[in-house]
Amino acid sequence: MDFRIATRADVPAVLDLLADDDITRERGYGTVPEKVDAAVWAAFEAIDADDRNELIVAVEGDEVVGTCQLTFIPGLSRGGGERMLIEAVRIHSGRRGEGLGGELIRWTVARARERGCRIAQLTTDKRRTDAHRFYARLGFEASHEGFKMAL
Amino acid sequence: MDFRIATRADVPAVLDLLADDDITRERGYGTVPEKVDAAVWAAFEAIDADDRNELIVAVEGDEVVGTCQLTFIPGLSRGGGERMLIEAVRIHSGRRGEGLGGELIRWTVARARERGCRIAQLTTDKRRTDAHRFYARLGFEASHEGFKMAL
Repeated sequence: MDFRIATRADVPAVLDLLADDDITRERGYGTVPEKVDAAVWAAFEAIDADDRNELIVAVEGDEVVGTCQLTFIPGLSRGGGERMLIEAVRIHSGRRGEGLGGELIRWTVARARERGCRIAQLTTDKRRTDAHRFYARLGFEASHEGFKMAL
Repeated sequence: MDFRIATRADVPAVLDLLADDDITRERGYGTVPEKVDAAVWAAFEAIDADDRNELIVAVEGDEVVGTCQLTFIPGLSRGGGERMLIEAVRIHSGRRGEGLGGELIRWTVARARERGCRIAQLTTDKRRTDAHRFYARLGFEASHEGFKMAL
């Protein structure tokens, strides 16, 4: 499996991965429109142009089998070190249970270390109990409550 | 109380607020060195130059009484809407319990709405039970587990 920054051509495959998820469906984003929305293209362009945001794809041959987004956040805490936030992690539903997710997350953590980040963090829905075990096995600690407010 | 983007002159006061916290002390960042570290100045410059990061101060007269950092994150989820992450929230230890924290957080949420963000989010240490009640009262839902890995 290769990991790389997504190109414009990867966007439809990433949208398919994001949508194919029970909790996403519940939020009303479980269907990918045939024509990608202008706001979604604008978001991709914003990520692509920003040194502190990276849309990552895990690729096997021509197929996008996983994705996540990384945000590198400067801050005054922890001696001025960057924080890496991981969002929107997905592995293709037909390819789960093979360890691809672990490879993807370990790759992102290596990327954070390389960049000199002091901390890596993510939140995952309380209902995703498999994900909780997965992140604990990878060395993350469930030390925080994740609060969200839809706007 | 006024809210505004921090200037370079506010940095020492913000560092004092960040350090004056039991959990921060436990992490080894409970003392502010007399001379602000170059890495911290670099982090301030990075935030200040970045349209998607804002260091906020709550000010009464000449005094900085609160702070937080906002990061606006573009993403392909939720129809391409931005996500606002709130980090490093502090109210001066001598001014807690007066409602200043609620004013600060409500102001950040209004800022997120103005910008068209789809979601506001934050994590708070599981030991900060007062903070959990505080965010719940403000309309946040503790829907997620917050995983962290120190690097």
